[in-house]
Amino acid sequence: MVVLAALPTVGVDLLRERLDVATDGRAAGAVAIVSDPSIRVDADLLDAADSSLEVVANFGVGYDNIDLDAARVRGVRITNTPGVLTSATAELAVALMLAAARRIAEADAMVRRDEWARSDTDELIGRELAGATVGLVGFGRIARRVAELIRGFDVRLLVTSRSSGTPWAGAERLKLPDLLRASDFVSVHVPLTAETRHLIDASALATMKPGAILVNTSRGAVVDTKALIDALRSGH
Amino acid sequence: MVVLAALPTVGVDLLRERLDVATDGRAAGAVAIVSDPSIRVDADLLDAADSSLEVVANFGVGYDNIDLDAARVRGVRITNTPGVLTSATAELAVALMLAAARRIAEADAMVRRDEWARSDTDELIGRELAGATVGLVGFGRIARRVAELIRGFDVRLLVTSRSSGTPWAGAERLKLPDLLRASDFVSVHVPLTAETRHLIDASALATMKPGAILVNTSRGAVVDTKALIDALRSGH
Repeated sequence: MVVLAALPTVGVDLLRERLDVATDGRAAGAVAIVSDPSIRVDADLLDAADSSLEVVANFGVGYDNIDLDAARVRGVRITNTPGVLTSATAELAVALMLAAARRIAEADAMVRRDEWARSDTDELIGRELAGATVGLVGFGRIARRVAELIRGFDVRLLVTSRSSGTPWAGAERLKLPDLLRASDFVSVHVPLTAETRHLIDASALATMKPGAILVNTSRGAVVDTKALIDALRSGH
Repeated sequence: MVVLAALPTVGVDLLRERLDVATDGRAAGAVAIVSDPSIRVDADLLDAADSSLEVVANFGVGYDNIDLDAARVRGVRITNTPGVLTSATAELAVALMLAAARRIAEADAMVRRDEWARSDTDELIGRELAGATVGLVGFGRIARRVAELIRGFDVRLLVTSRSSGTPWAGAERLKLPDLLRASDFVSVHVPLTAETRHLIDASALATMKPGAILVNTSRGAVVDTKALIDALRSGH
């Protein structure tokens, strides 16, 4: 098999225990390819592997990097790894909400520049998550885990989701613009599809409360980076 | 009144609405002094204010900066502000646990140095709080709020506390060395007293699991900084 993915060393070692593993990037003759979302799995790559190829195992839950049609016509199966990173991703989202709220990276950099004593006392107080309104965009596995993790924080929880029905005890379902207008924290948890590309665009950002905190632990392209930079530069 | 504390501007403005406020540091003739834990309130300061002084209002829950005996003999009342920062401090402790676990300040600095693409994939994965063993040193208001905030994370919760009885549903009470030995995360929540000064010393640090995360949102002197630096340099 050939491993193209940037797997942690421990993962590659585990594969080597059972399989003949190549990490030199040459797909020719491979029975299996281990890819990750940063690697484009298209007709060219599948053809380079030739008819020996049986499976592409994508390391991650998203598979927007894979040309599913090209794989289907070549009889190559595609696997992904849903679930394993649900809790880790949800925890990262909460960590980033709290870190942004309390300006931890800024404070850390300030201490390392030896500027702590000179700091203006108003500067880095930040804000609390407790009592705030948190909007979750999307309400799949990861967002539900975020809701679970922050239930000790007494937040008002808003969610937007395609599926109907009450999604969670204590969560209010809103349309995206209403959720963005009301939330102090917005955390994005949607897959990247044609529909969700640049879901958070200039108009969505303009709808958000000034000073609200946006966390995106889903695919980067769900947020329009250029519009985000413009919004930040404008001081919104 | 004279304000010596590094109050946020909004606080000083609020005082000015009702009182004659001086912020030039001269205590002479003041009826009240607003201090904070960074300001030594001793006999010299109290005498500088003279017999007009009735109260020293300390901005913060701790009052280890105040010579209580000197205040008592001069008939000066001392106040502090317990409670108001309980939730904010607990939240900061959780934020620091998560930020350290997921190496957020390091990752932020790496992106700002434009070194993200070059990063080794093993480097910044970090660890989860979920499923970990969390040891709370002290179990007063702030530590209890920490326990409440992280109840969504499914941790094993250990506490050390002077008072007897079961302190919290699901928390195990241990002696400090046993707690330090078992914990992946240790968060310190004790007042600074003669007993707790350097409570976390070289021997306590050596007892901790290698790689465990220590968070101190209580007074700095509860941890022996020199011993901490030595432990970090040794790669413990």
